[in-house]
Amino acid sequence: MEKKRTTIVLFSGDYDKAMAAYIIANGAAAYDHEVTIFHTFWGLNALRKDETIPLKKGFMEKMFGKMMPRGADKMGLSKMNFSGFGPKMIKNVMKKHNAMTLPQLIEMAEEQEVKLVACTMTMDLLGLQKEELLNNIEYAGVAAYLADAEEGNVNLFI
Amino acid sequence: MEKKRTTIVLFSGDYDKAMAAYIIANGAAAYDHEVTIFHTFWGLNALRKDETIPLKKGFMEKMFGKMMPRGADKMGLSKMNFSGFGPKMIKNVMKKHNAMTLPQLIEMAEEQEVKLVACTMTMDLLGLQKEELLNNIEYAGVAAYLADAEEGNVNLFI
Amino acid sequence: MEKKRTTIVLFSGDYDKAMAAYIIANGAAAYDHEVTIFHTFWGLNALRKDETIPLKKGFMEKMFGKMMPRGADKMGLSKMNFSGFGPKMIKNVMKKHNAMTLPQLIEMAEEQEVKLVACTMTMDLLGLQKEELLNNIEYAGVAAYLADAEEGNVNLFI
Repeated sequence: MEKKRTTIVLFSGDYDKAMAAYIIANGAAAYDHEVTIFHTFWGLNALRKDETIPLKKGFMEKMFGKMMPRGADKMGLSKMNFSGFGPKMIKNVMKKHNAMTLPQLIEMAEEQEVKLVACTMTMDLLGLQKEELLNNIEYAGVAAYLADAEEGNVNLFI
Repeated sequence: MEKKRTTIVLFSGDYDKAMAAYIIANGAAAYDHEVTIFHTFWGLNALRKDETIPLKKGFMEKMFGKMMPRGADKMGLSKMNFSGFGPKMIKNVMKKHNAMTLPQLIEMAEEQEVKLVACTMTMDLLGLQKEELLNNIEYAGVAAYLADAEEGNVNLFI
Repeated sequence: MEKKRTTIVLFSGDYDKAMAAYIIANGAAAYDHEVTIFHTFWGLNALRKDETIPLKKGFMEKMFGKMMPRGADKMGLSKMNFSGFGPKMIKNVMKKHNAMTLPQLIEMAEEQEVKLVACTMTMDLLGLQKEELLNNIEYAGVAAYLADAEEGNVNLFI
């Protein structure tokens, strides 16, 4: 029997939406799907390292780099963000319920061999370089995304 | 021949997005698909009863409960919400065109036996309890979602 | 062998999300998928002509018509819109990287025979008329959407 497949485009840079993406991905991996998360546009921020990496960049690229959240832990909520207070509330509640944080969910996905891909075209647009992103991820474009997606049933755009 | 399947994750708490989800779900049910809507995060608000249910809750849970819309009819728009004036405009236009409101679409989905599921993990996070949600819905987690989704072609995250 | 199929619901009226939709659609068409983009709610704005078309409309319809962006080039960003400055930044960077603009991506989709559909039910709601939308597109409802979607694997809601 062929392996089942789950392929997620993570476009959103919101903490809650990225959580949903990684919860579904980790669930699918546990049920033995081959899983890919293709990070594009603001979703790339989930893959950023949290330290500042000194790199040569143009003005626009520097500006984008500063304005976008540096890593999963810094991302805001899609609803009730309240200038950053919302994520603190959610994280408090998550702690109380022993729920996994987004950085923990990403680590779990890496351990379960979920394929984490960064979209090279939008990295270019937002001025993000490989040195700023997590190690051990893959780099690809829309062709590679489609090759994974067309083989499976569970295709989501988040 | 196997039955076709449509499985929708309703993550969003916006009136217009929930409308789209329920219109597709009702259409698919009419064309004899097996249909599931899996409500998670803000999408759970579409399942809330509109009255206040007295329940014992912690401080955070109470706060979330107050800030989130109590039921489908209270939800805002994803665009042009204008502090609540947008939904009134849309509802006016819908009335003029005899379009179904969101509460009516949900009722229709129940009649057509669309499976309405509330995600238990995010109910916990947002402090929502079964007593506050519509009767006759199901409660499940990501495993049950994947079991439905992996059998069908039409999988959407809304 | 059967042809592969990609069917996208474009619900969003954001420039960046519409770009993602059209990049995936053009990629899929290049890999010989049959591709449909079903434009509904705010996604209809991507199909608007940029000139004003004089038409008889009710008050609400006129108001919606004025407040919504007239065509792909006028759409805002889902993140970092900064009252319209965000799209200018993105467009600057795109020019520098020779990336295709949204209007160019739409033209390419038309050349590759991607089926562009406008949702008639939401056109009614938002008071949009055929004269205001691009020529050579199709008009349909949820039944036609499902007929395309249920035959293919890559189904996205954007």
